Amino acid sequence: MPSPLDATHDPHLQSWVASANLPDTDFPIQNLPFGIFQRSRSQPRIGIAIGDYIVDLSVCIQNGVLTDLPEAIKVACMATHLNPLMGLGQRAITTLRHQLSHLLEVATPPPDQEILVPMAEVHMLLPAQIGNYTDFYASIHHATNVGQLFRPDHPLLPNYKHIPIAYHGRASSIVVSHTPIHRPQGQQRPAASGEFPSFRPSQRLDYEGEVGLLVGRGNALGEPIPIHQAEEHLFGLCLVNDWSARDIQAWEYQPLGPFLGKSFATSLSPWVIPMAALAPFRCSPLQRSVDDPEPLPYLTENNNLSGINLTIEVWLSSAQMSQENISPIRLSQASFAQLYWTAAQMITHHTSNGCNLQPGDLLASGTVSGPTSETWGSLLEITHQGTTPIQLPTGEQRSFLADGDEVILRGYCESPNYRKIGFGDCRGKILSR
Amino acid sequence: MPSPLDATHDPHLQSWVASANLPDTDFPIQNLPFGIFQRSRSQPRIGIAIGDYIVDLSVCIQNGVLTDLPEAIKVACMATHLNPLMGLGQRAITTLRHQLSHLLEVATPPPDQEILVPMAEVHMLLPAQIGNYTDFYASIHHATNVGQLFRPDHPLLPNYKHIPIAYHGRASSIVVSHTPIHRPQGQQRPAASGEFPSFRPSQRLDYEGEVGLLVGRGNALGEPIPIHQAEEHLFGLCLVNDWSARDIQAWEYQPLGPFLGKSFATSLSPWVIPMAALAPFRCSPLQRSVDDPEPLPYLTENNNLSGINLTIEVWLSSAQMSQENISPIRLSQASFAQLYWTAAQMITHHTSNGCNLQPGDLLASGTVSGPTSETWGSLLEITHQGTTPIQLPTGEQRSFLADGDEVILRGYCESPNYRKIGFGDCRGKILSR
Repeated sequence: MPSPLDATHDPHLQSWVASANLPDTDFPIQNLPFGIFQRSRSQPRIGIAIGDYIVDLSVCIQNGVLTDLPEAIKVACMATHLNPLMGLGQRAITTLRHQLSHLLEVATPPPDQEILVPMAEVHMLLPAQIGNYTDFYASIHHATNVGQLFRPDHPLLPNYKHIPIAYHGRASSIVVSHTPIHRPQGQQRPAASGEFPSFRPSQRLDYEGEVGLLVGRGNALGEPIPIHQAEEHLFGLCLVNDWSARDIQAWEYQPLGPFLGKSFATSLSPWVIPMAALAPFRCSPLQRSVDDPEPLPYLTENNNLSGINLTIEVWLSSAQMSQENISPIRLSQASFAQLYWTAAQMITHHTSNGCNLQPGDLLASGTVSGPTSETWGSLLEITHQGTTPIQLPTGEQRSFLADGDEVILRGYCESPNYRKIGFGDCRGKILSR
Repeated sequence: MPSPLDATHDPHLQSWVASANLPDTDFPIQNLPFGIFQRSRSQPRIGIAIGDYIVDLSVCIQNGVLTDLPEAIKVACMATHLNPLMGLGQRAITTLRHQLSHLLEVATPPPDQEILVPMAEVHMLLPAQIGNYTDFYASIHHATNVGQLFRPDHPLLPNYKHIPIAYHGRASSIVVSHTPIHRPQGQQRPAASGEFPSFRPSQRLDYEGEVGLLVGRGNALGEPIPIHQAEEHLFGLCLVNDWSARDIQAWEYQPLGPFLGKSFATSLSPWVIPMAALAPFRCSPLQRSVDDPEPLPYLTENNNLSGINLTIEVWLSSAQMSQENISPIRLSQASFAQLYWTAAQMITHHTSNGCNLQPGDLLASGTVSGPTSETWGSLLEITHQGTTPIQLPTGEQRSFLADGDEVILRGYCESPNYRKIGFGDCRGKILSR
């Protein structure tokens, strides 16, 4: 079940951190996302984004600015990654969130201690030690678009509407936003049958705009999570760029699925938006058509707010655009609510065979694409496998990514009666090989 | 390059641990594998198997029994898992191995300190924190057998002889030998088109007998490991049972590969045989046929001993056999040297796109099958997808695994002029759901 609405969501709430009250900030007091920051060479610490600042949780705990918290929460707040906090479950996060909201609101006098760090003075690290990474394929539009390229007559396979398709991804090569991406080399399909494959830098490097679900409390091996409890195991959301080398992937993926076409890098946005912050943006899930099969009972949700009204955008800047001070262009804008499978269905399906999830595990949605070309979340779809390149403002063309290109994912939640909240950027620039 | 032969491999070497000199022990003084053991509720510790005993490395270091070791090795020997030792690289392991061999040989007086723990008094844990698990498909016989079931006309896909096929597995559900295995539930293909899939306990539960490669020193993201350096990144080998629910796998695996059909459990043998111990058993890799393509340059080895003469066996005991005190029966016996791709080729291919390996990562070979039915490493192959069940001595039949069945993997290396070494068992028994 979604978290309840409470005082922390009050759209009129303002903070004594002035930049948090600006209309275009990603991080108003209604958001309060979690991340890991590092100031020069000091120990990584847990922080909460507020406007252009970060609340240093270690300083808050050490100096008694946040009191009245159970000891387990205090200890978890002092860790160098979010996993211990994630493992405490949602009630602990709600408790902490209420104290943070009170601490930062305009009616509370700022504490004597210096608890804020300017974002500009730190660099961000991965929010969690990600033990396992699973990538779903939850957008029916994306699955149809990709299927159409390979099987025009029956793009969607018979299992798609029954089972949330996913594969295991590589956890070691997950990097935080701003980490440069090495163009991968790899084997590419022979030009003709009987010839040899080539081995060279990928010519079809692509991005995939996805939403990441970070697991909170885990489950024991052999104990599936029922659908009505699934969201209790979800800590929060972030943005994921699942970089893909389409030429490497096309040659290697039969019969066991994607491997090196994906495992060279996956970028994550540094801030995790806790599920509690998303409460005002819950919505009904995708309306299925009358022809669509009902989900099997283990995937049937008794929750008409199982969707999340989250918009994800992909922006591109080429090296030349950057040199000429031309702003990035938006390539797509899609909604997480248009996925065929919900977050809860992904979690329950993942554990239905007894597989154990652990705090900090990443489940990504797969490319978030909608029904129209402005909503397609990869170049593979937008350029029809490279056959219809896009034009950049510099006159450059792109079928796939060029060296020096920077891809920027942005995400935000809007709702008429609530304060808009943002996810912060997920950026990555392609290095030549 | 394989480790050199040295005094630790002398076949005449005997130990003052009498059970290590018995002809049928897996753990003579020439082996000295690494594992993690726990005695009642004390801290997990690194141990070395010798006959029916375990050398407690912590005790050796603390009490000055092993001296003359660099500080980094001493610290790594005191850890609760093998990862720090793995990360030190092969020279450190060779140094440690020489001291252990000297300590335990019959000419050395046993130390005053009690450094041995009887194996019967401890339980074994996973040898490493396994950050990532990759499963290859390196047996051409297995790939052909499986392909034949689905594509009788062209069982082997065009990529197979060019590229070491693999997929990412689930690391969280890797368990140590003797951990019971919950029969997974899952979606199974509808009986007819247009009907619904069922959701029920797997009816086609299978094992896969595999060899596990545990990574030693890692590589940085973006820096591939050249083939001539690949084995320097290998710590050692163990046995892997990659349990597989064939019915779940068959319905879910298009288009992104195996997921829940595998992720419910993977069993590992507790002892890791370091590469140094395998030096006497190096052999030429599989002789390719004249029609087979040469591997691409990045996969071409300048090493005529890139194979390992390692035999892997699969044994089965049913609940009824166990009750009637009937010994397990052997289902297959195959050789790691018959794989189409070598350990070095797997490592180099895995990192060829820049993917980073980390100490403790697991690369499994995929099912080790040879050319004849006695060498097939899964029931899928032996029973031709369940159509030709095997007979057990009790009169029972098996197409796939029944509740209460125990699968036992065994591995060993033999060579005419050297002492045989064993891997210890990898066991798992099926629990009903």
